[in-house]
Amino acid sequence: MKIDSVDFFYLAMPVVTTAGDGSQDALVIRVSAGGHVGWGECEAAPLPSIAAFVCPMSHGACRPVSASVLGEAIDGPEDIKRMASALALNSMDLLQAPHTWSGIEVALWDLLGRIRGEPAWKLLGYSKSHPKTPYASVLFGATPQQSLERAKELRARGFRAVKFGWAPFGDSLQGDIDQLDAARQGIGPDGILLIDAGQIFADDVDAAALRLASLNANKVTWFEEPFGGFAYDAYRRLAARSGAVKLAGGEAAHNRYMAQHLIEYGQVGYVQIDCGRIGGLWPAKQVADYATARGVTYVNHTFTSNLALSASLQPYAGLQESRICEYPTALSRLAVDLTATHIVPDSNGEIAAPDAPGLGIEIDERALKQYAVDVEIKVGGRTIFAPPRI
Amino acid sequence: MKIDSVDFFYLAMPVVTTAGDGSQDALVIRVSAGGHVGWGECEAAPLPSIAAFVCPMSHGACRPVSASVLGEAIDGPEDIKRMASALALNSMDLLQAPHTWSGIEVALWDLLGRIRGEPAWKLLGYSKSHPKTPYASVLFGATPQQSLERAKELRARGFRAVKFGWAPFGDSLQGDIDQLDAARQGIGPDGILLIDAGQIFADDVDAAALRLASLNANKVTWFEEPFGGFAYDAYRRLAARSGAVKLAGGEAAHNRYMAQHLIEYGQVGYVQIDCGRIGGLWPAKQVADYATARGVTYVNHTFTSNLALSASLQPYAGLQESRICEYPTALSRLAVDLTATHIVPDSNGEIAAPDAPGLGIEIDERALKQYAVDVEIKVGGRTIFAPPRI
Repeated sequence: MKIDSVDFFYLAMPVVTTAGDGSQDALVIRVSAGGHVGWGECEAAPLPSIAAFVCPMSHGACRPVSASVLGEAIDGPEDIKRMASALALNSMDLLQAPHTWSGIEVALWDLLGRIRGEPAWKLLGYSKSHPKTPYASVLFGATPQQSLERAKELRARGFRAVKFGWAPFGDSLQGDIDQLDAARQGIGPDGILLIDAGQIFADDVDAAALRLASLNANKVTWFEEPFGGFAYDAYRRLAARSGAVKLAGGEAAHNRYMAQHLIEYGQVGYVQIDCGRIGGLWPAKQVADYATARGVTYVNHTFTSNLALSASLQPYAGLQESRICEYPTALSRLAVDLTATHIVPDSNGEIAAPDAPGLGIEIDERALKQYAVDVEIKVGGRTIFAPPRI
Repeated sequence: MKIDSVDFFYLAMPVVTTAGDGSQDALVIRVSAGGHVGWGECEAAPLPSIAAFVCPMSHGACRPVSASVLGEAIDGPEDIKRMASALALNSMDLLQAPHTWSGIEVALWDLLGRIRGEPAWKLLGYSKSHPKTPYASVLFGATPQQSLERAKELRARGFRAVKFGWAPFGDSLQGDIDQLDAARQGIGPDGILLIDAGQIFADDVDAAALRLASLNANKVTWFEEPFGGFAYDAYRRLAARSGAVKLAGGEAAHNRYMAQHLIEYGQVGYVQIDCGRIGGLWPAKQVADYATARGVTYVNHTFTSNLALSASLQPYAGLQESRICEYPTALSRLAVDLTATHIVPDSNGEIAAPDAPGLGIEIDERALKQYAVDVEIKVGGRTIFAPPRI
């Protein structure tokens, strides 16, 4: 079977704000081969990612992503790995390429799974999709009181685990302490509390370390992204002082090496992988194997649609011990409407990667129309990109 | 002074091939502020890099590069560093951003230098631009005999140092040995011989190590990029076995951390920085300081125009001990025509960063017209990019 087409659907809410809400737009991929179809989503800026697929070649090591995909054979998992290897050489100098490829790679597993009638996690080598404990991923309130109320509300909705993140965290030490106290008070003494600093401390270990006492006092399970994704040395130095609180990071990894380095050099206790950035399911599975062998817990990273959520669960669906999982609870209307299938917690408050072919998620094609962004790219008078037909 | 405009000139040769020649197209940046102008060049895929500047915002940490640049104050070096820090947060999730920013950052130093009447290297803190020994950077011949003749010809043209790279290197062990013998024979016993494997061994240490005996026998100074840019562990393991031959790498670094990691974790002896990728002159200067403190030699990486060449020399212009420098000798017509100023070896066969304001390079605006690629990007019916007026 040959890959006949790769279509990019650029979707967006009518208004996109500077809020830390990644579900305000979406880049959805449809791959067609031999009459079959698979779907994936890039966790990436849509326009540059589309450009990375359609751009003219610059030279032999700076080819568009399309050059390693269109017309290629897709008969089994080995074909996906082969394309990934070709891309690494052909698009070596095209920085955006891994973000573009990620959605395509996910769609290829979905396609293969649908053809074979098997879930993607089975194609990745697992025999069972174990239940996960979802954590609600929300932003801090503007005030500690707001965070407290948000936590209470999430507990009331059945979440045992809550992650608070981003501004105003990092603005002031006392403000952060107040927020942490409020968050713990809100979810109660038995709740799992996770904190995401959103890289606010860049590589300032001492500034981040000032928060450790309060993080420990509030029994925070992990302290996520205190630093830039590449600041391994800062991670390592903070990890050495962080006590029972473990560091978490890895969402920015755009290849498996970056995630492995954060484990090896940064000494994180949790590695968080976004399949929409790292190059899809296969490199994520490699990271899961690597982490497991080193006593590090793999966690999914996702903050867009349930298509991306299902993708993010596949690479560690079979790891019974890695129980915690990210579960976005404040999705935009677009991200909700995109899928006809939704992954919802069962009566135990748990979720799992669907036991259904591919990703087990059906797209609602009405959303592809309703939220479509009209984009046209012309080079040399020729249209090289226009929105695909649905 | 406020930044009034950032213009992108996408230039290309009429025909672009898969050859490993990065000068077949160019993305040239013009920054205007308060009636002054500065020029820079991205070493990047033009279309995705333009898209990263003009794209709609996805969320607060995925804003276009323009959001951290347009309208900002530019009165001194601190403003450039401030914009770089803002970009790191505002465009955290936009993978292509560092490649786009690199050309802008270079243009900002050029602009500041022109206003103050000082070379960029002086603004970076150096008091003198020391001469460098240029190496001719060429591709291996298809046969060893062709490589031998190429080396002889370059010696005859006055080059004491020659770097051979890419295919067919890596195709077969005996073929590689024959190529290395031919290259050494061609440049003579006293020539400086450098080899670039173009990442052909991915992370296969044993395959790369098979070449070490011949690399040592032929007194190769450095063995460049045997592996992917992130394969630090492979670098470290090969470095432990490489004898007098030192490893080199770093050209893919799109932030200073990546280059520092290749030194710290990969144990390279030479770190090669492309200012058109790493985020411009300032992070490159930080890498130069870091390398010098650790006994590692900084080298420029550049394979496009003399505008990029001058930029690449600035961050280590003042380092007297770091003598070797990359000097492209097989530039496309476009890359030659782009600048009215050309950096040519003096009677000693040496070159230096110009002792002239900014980068010391004048653009030939005729080339901006002659090689212009007509690009138009429309979003929501509105043109968000069209070629700028010259």
